[in-house]
Amino acid sequence: MLDVYIAGAGMTRFGKRPEPLSVLVREAAEMALRAAGQGAVEALYVGVMNAEQFTGDSNVASELVDALDLTGIPAVRLETASATGAAVFHAAAQAVAARVYQSVLVVAGEKMTDRPAPLVTGILAEVLDRDERLCGLSMPAAAALITLRYASEQRLTPEQLSKVLARIAVKNHANGALNPYAQFRQGLSEEHYLRSAFVADPLRLYDCAPISDGAAALVLTSTPRPVRVLGLGNGTDYVALRLRRSLTSFEATRRAAELAFRMARLTPAAIDLAEVHDAFTSFELIGCEDLGLFAPGEALKEMERGATELRGRLPVNPSGGLKARGHPVGASGLAQIVELTWQLEQSLPAERRVPRAECALAQSIGGLASNNFVTILGKSRAGPLAAAGRWSSAAPRAVADSAKGGAGANGARRSSGAPSQGGERPKARPRQEGIDAVGEVETFTISRRPPAGFPAPLVLAIVRDRFGRRAVARTRNNLPVRIGQQVYITTKGGVHELAPKSRLRRLGVLARRQYRRLRQRLPGGVRRAASDDAAGRAA
Amino acid sequence: MLDVYIAGAGMTRFGKRPEPLSVLVREAAEMALRAAGQGAVEALYVGVMNAEQFTGDSNVASELVDALDLTGIPAVRLETASATGAAVFHAAAQAVAARVYQSVLVVAGEKMTDRPAPLVTGILAEVLDRDERLCGLSMPAAAALITLRYASEQRLTPEQLSKVLARIAVKNHANGALNPYAQFRQGLSEEHYLRSAFVADPLRLYDCAPISDGAAALVLTSTPRPVRVLGLGNGTDYVALRLRRSLTSFEATRRAAELAFRMARLTPAAIDLAEVHDAFTSFELIGCEDLGLFAPGEALKEMERGATELRGRLPVNPSGGLKARGHPVGASGLAQIVELTWQLEQSLPAERRVPRAECALAQSIGGLASNNFVTILGKSRAGPLAAAGRWSSAAPRAVADSAKGGAGANGARRSSGAPSQGGERPKARPRQEGIDAVGEVETFTISRRPPAGFPAPLVLAIVRDRFGRRAVARTRNNLPVRIGQQVYITTKGGVHELAPKSRLRRLGVLARRQYRRLRQRLPGGVRRAASDDAAGRAA
Repeated sequence: MLDVYIAGAGMTRFGKRPEPLSVLVREAAEMALRAAGQGAVEALYVGVMNAEQFTGDSNVASELVDALDLTGIPAVRLETASATGAAVFHAAAQAVAARVYQSVLVVAGEKMTDRPAPLVTGILAEVLDRDERLCGLSMPAAAALITLRYASEQRLTPEQLSKVLARIAVKNHANGALNPYAQFRQGLSEEHYLRSAFVADPLRLYDCAPISDGAAALVLTSTPRPVRVLGLGNGTDYVALRLRRSLTSFEATRRAAELAFRMARLTPAAIDLAEVHDAFTSFELIGCEDLGLFAPGEALKEMERGATELRGRLPVNPSGGLKARGHPVGASGLAQIVELTWQLEQSLPAERRVPRAECALAQSIGGLASNNFVTILGKSRAGPLAAAGRWSSAAPRAVADSAKGGAGANGARRSSGAPSQGGERPKARPRQEGIDAVGEVETFTISRRPPAGFPAPLVLAIVRDRFGRRAVARTRNNLPVRIGQQVYITTKGGVHELAPKSRLRRLGVLARRQYRRLRQRLPGGVRRAASDDAAGRAA
Repeated sequence: MLDVYIAGAGMTRFGKRPEPLSVLVREAAEMALRAAGQGAVEALYVGVMNAEQFTGDSNVASELVDALDLTGIPAVRLETASATGAAVFHAAAQAVAARVYQSVLVVAGEKMTDRPAPLVTGILAEVLDRDERLCGLSMPAAAALITLRYASEQRLTPEQLSKVLARIAVKNHANGALNPYAQFRQGLSEEHYLRSAFVADPLRLYDCAPISDGAAALVLTSTPRPVRVLGLGNGTDYVALRLRRSLTSFEATRRAAELAFRMARLTPAAIDLAEVHDAFTSFELIGCEDLGLFAPGEALKEMERGATELRGRLPVNPSGGLKARGHPVGASGLAQIVELTWQLEQSLPAERRVPRAECALAQSIGGLASNNFVTILGKSRAGPLAAAGRWSSAAPRAVADSAKGGAGANGARRSSGAPSQGGERPKARPRQEGIDAVGEVETFTISRRPPAGFPAPLVLAIVRDRFGRRAVARTRNNLPVRIGQQVYITTKGGVHELAPKSRLRRLGVLARRQYRRLRQRLPGGVRRAASDDAAGRAA
């Protein structure tokens, strides 16, 4: 375990802020330094995701060390897309653990509201795979594709899905209403949620974290303090959705969790509260399962039972989460850790304090879950070894099931593979590129606010061919599709387009001609598949 | 000292490369992994300065972990402008030292040649202070301002300055000619140097590092190997040139050097060879002095004596430096460390090998010397303690003088202040903003290739008022100025404009009217100064 402690935490209110980034960072940093009771730090660690494009600033580590009147000390900047705030915390903790510095200041922030929303959506979409962006995929659309697939695997009706997502949004807004640093403080009713517009079906406006400005800060030290860093873990997965083993479980989270729990010598059973990256409400569900906080398939039921509410068995996002606290992309990962610190210090007002919190976890997602981080903090008063002894003897809550890939009720979803074991590097899988001319729709969405330059709405889908290769595609003429539907896939300028097979039949002569032309261009295997279909039709 | 060793090093040839960044990084990484004799690493550390603007890529840590077929393992990206390659090496070494990982892969790269040169110049200029950029300041222009000031303080004639800069360029090109990874391999004659065009007087084309593509990679491990990390140091200085104590000594380097030498328990006398950030030839001179490799004012003489040549007493930039090896901004800091590793391993061909190299240093500059890094490597066969004993007993070459602020021949230049001592945070100096209406030219340049959107040529200067406050300014109608000249300063839209006082006199009635109008607008103090001038004229 690392000899790293948190000496003080601070953050700004998140939301639309008139101040420049440097002023926001300074506000958060001064609060953290005050809380730490110290003026001097030896180094500055900066987390900003994309000042270059959001505000036209470069050289941000230098800019911020100046803005903080700390000019002279070492200063570096880290970036891992929307997990930047967690990444910078981990790097700073490693430097303190290595005894390179005794005390460092970690700041993370983002200034996003200077630009119009479609442009921000476009900048954020650049974290996605370049090829998959060609059809107009945005972050909300990608999240919607994952959410619908999740619902389908869980056999939820649209109404049931709405209900559970509403429940998460309402919970997080209720928590945010108690948090003076949250962007949204007015709460949210289920009715209001259900009346809100779709951003990318099935995700509504209230399923998506807002565009925000804000900053967070922490002081880390090697001198024992009440809150200790117990575990750090980071894991990656393919940027391209099409290459992933599973669409509905984030391997990057599972790998990060495994490393963090191993460093902390803990199991998920030890966790008393968690901040889970709910950039989209459904990610809170998936995150809780990936972290092993609930057995696969159990998160839904536990949330219905209220387990994750502020007064529940395992409060999740007591701060309001990204959903209600706001989501300045570079800052969120660090703001989660600020919340855990305050909860463990028991310094918050009773109304929003999680009682008896001894051990807390934060999970942060970078990009569309391509680079995720898990951070575990605990009270350090019991001393490291005693604490480890107490915790490692605790019964694992769900990790055993999670570690072996989940053979439970949700076997199908988990069969896509367990996370890497024993610290080994996961085997590089051959990248299967290209797509067949016929496939089956795995999931779809109607993207209603695509990035700048794309028409709205836009029907997007993930299609899988009989070789198991996937593609993100749009449908021809925005035609609706459904999960499991057989479609023809054509590709032009790198953009895959889907045409429902059934539609070709309905269109008669014209379609049959098109179908024949298509057959002539197909390789042997696919021609056979097309013939099978024709045979099926005859029968 | 840290228990961190270099297991293997690799890099691509630098230059204009057709491949995308991911392919370049892969080439360098495969070479480093081969050299390390290992396939498995536990984490990836990525250094890229500005993929967002150079190539439109975001989420680069994730993109590169995929490109390297390492998907799954932790991956983070660091950025500190043009010192990015050094910053990522330091962060990776800290993580290994903290025993978070036993073995990590560090990669750094940049892809710059996809964009037209004026656009690249503009993107690079964004590391400069926002206010100082308003008048069209570019990196070469800023370096030229510093260079002319340096020459003036050293009392060099333009011919002497040309001669010493030519000497550095010729040396580095000669070294580059021997390096198969260098961008320029044809060598450079003094005549050719002197015939080359000015980019920003007194800097010519051959004083400036080129725009390049390329990547470098290293494998770090906690298992003893022949090359060991001895010292790491990072220091910052104001981004704004106007706020610095000295224009001609980089405090960021001096602070970084102090930390690195302290960690290594060495003095500059122990250094057998150095890679010094020569983005501009004059920076090699300044760097050698700031590092304590030569006493202040001595670097010039030592270079004339050939001390820094490949077969000299203290070879500097045996790789060819940024000047001849090329300067893919994110990669250069790591490429320097790759060169040191190869030199210490004695694995290079005899023609370009520095004999008896036991201890080597790299200095990397971020931005216009706002965030600098020093890395010290050594042979580890003697064992850490023995080595430290041997080295720390060596007579300091120049560090004593450097540490006490330099009271030698170059007192004026060094009087601006010593670096921070004893690890204390340097005191925040009050920022003196604003500028008086009258000042004296400290240095100037004719910028012939300003960033996109500015007319060429552009006469720029740094002016200092009687309160010691500085401003970067342009001259009215591009009028020439000289060092020490008295000028009037006007400000419009944040851009400071200088008009020579003498010119007003020559212009007769019209000018006198303008002069009276100006006087009426001036505060008391300045009006008096203006009267003094009038009195002086009368006398």
